[in-house]
Amino acid sequence: MCELLGMSANVPTDICFSFSGLVQRGGRTGPHVDGWGITFYEGKGCRTFKDPVACAQSRIAKLVQEYPIKSCAVVSHIRQANRGSVALENTHPFTRELWGRYWTFAHNGQLTDYESLVCGHFEPVGQTDSEKAFCWLLNQLSARFPVFPSVPDELFQFLASLCNQLMAKGVFNMLLSDGEFLITYCTTNLHTITRRAPFGQAKLIDDDVTVDFQQETTPDDVVTVIATQPLTNNESWIKMAKGEMKVFRLGELIVSLETEINQGA
Amino acid sequence: MCELLGMSANVPTDICFSFSGLVQRGGRTGPHVDGWGITFYEGKGCRTFKDPVACAQSRIAKLVQEYPIKSCAVVSHIRQANRGSVALENTHPFTRELWGRYWTFAHNGQLTDYESLVCGHFEPVGQTDSEKAFCWLLNQLSARFPVFPSVPDELFQFLASLCNQLMAKGVFNMLLSDGEFLITYCTTNLHTITRRAPFGQAKLIDDDVTVDFQQETTPDDVVTVIATQPLTNNESWIKMAKGEMKVFRLGELIVSLETEINQGA
Repeated sequence: MCELLGMSANVPTDICFSFSGLVQRGGRTGPHVDGWGITFYEGKGCRTFKDPVACAQSRIAKLVQEYPIKSCAVVSHIRQANRGSVALENTHPFTRELWGRYWTFAHNGQLTDYESLVCGHFEPVGQTDSEKAFCWLLNQLSARFPVFPSVPDELFQFLASLCNQLMAKGVFNMLLSDGEFLITYCTTNLHTITRRAPFGQAKLIDDDVTVDFQQETTPDDVVTVIATQPLTNNESWIKMAKGEMKVFRLGELIVSLETEINQGA
Repeated sequence: MCELLGMSANVPTDICFSFSGLVQRGGRTGPHVDGWGITFYEGKGCRTFKDPVACAQSRIAKLVQEYPIKSCAVVSHIRQANRGSVALENTHPFTRELWGRYWTFAHNGQLTDYESLVCGHFEPVGQTDSEKAFCWLLNQLSARFPVFPSVPDELFQFLASLCNQLMAKGVFNMLLSDGEFLITYCTTNLHTITRRAPFGQAKLIDDDVTVDFQQETTPDDVVTVIATQPLTNNESWIKMAKGEMKVFRLGELIVSLETEINQGA
């Protein structure tokens, strides 16, 4: 499987601390050695650093850990390959444009019966179930909404119904962002934490690193971090439910959908 | 204006030497301080490093100079902004998927009357004339060829006719690649050099660096570099003609089109 890491913040914030914890799981404290990637949004633009090698040994990952790129929306992934070879074209996150916005997607899980998903003009480049699912989602969204909907809640509700269909094909934990919204969907494992004043200390589980957010922030900062498993051991992370979608904007939770599948359980 | 740098090679080759020369023009020997970017293809996948700050001062550019990423197709650009603000979404190269291939585009020049170009479902994210032209090209190509044409020459010929239309709107020097083909189009300034055995020494114009390619290569290597202006002062670069398209694959020139506009001049 893989691990996901996302961030939504109301001021440009670096993710060096959380990423340092994730990196350890990419070859040292975890088995996710088949590549890694991280996408930073800055305004409408985004940039991705990725490498098809183990994160813990990657010189580019070292740069990302040490060089504080400040962003209000981040999507990251470390990979343990199941579908698709270890190659750059199969390395998450994947980014495609829709409605004049760059959408970035990372997936944890494994799907069956995904080959027949219809992707229209969003054609996969690599061989993963993940990229295929992403292309299918975008194709469905573009067919339903010719432009970005004026009521974004309609987008989130439709997207949740699509994610439910993917969950029916296996495990589908997802992060999706356009730089404004950070959309999360959980099948098995996703945890969130929202940090705001008064800020405290946080200690990484996977590395001997402690940060005092009081020193790094202003009182108005709101920063949410989403990860497959909690990254710190002295804070309260919230586990998402099966079939739950949470949408964050500027660090705040703005939409929480417990989908029909979940409500019926 | 801006400067372009491209590479096509028959074995994965690093571009550290040429990129080191280009970097100097991004704030030291040249005025191109409004961002830079470089895309490396590895198989069907690609990764882009970009920064909206001056290349000569960029820590990420330093990594790219020092860390030899080996690739058979590279597209790079340093920017001196004219259309569009200095921002990540306006920083070249731009990458979009078509026919299950990632296409990467960088432009040198300035266009007028470009706002009305019809882009279909390839919608620009930023505000540059360059991204608009790229989206228009992809929209025209997708309308003409539902799948990647079995005879790629048909693609190149059609693309050359489209580039001619853009040249009628101003200056349009272009690099475009899908990782297999490196397509170049010249309005004013593009120079090429193909290096093959017997390899010699090359000396950068913009920095006190000399490389002995004999030490870096095997006898079968073929590497073509394309740049706005020659990067070395002890080799013979070939200047492209106005309206000329050259296509490289695995380092070799495979198509050279002197377009109608040029032939009529």
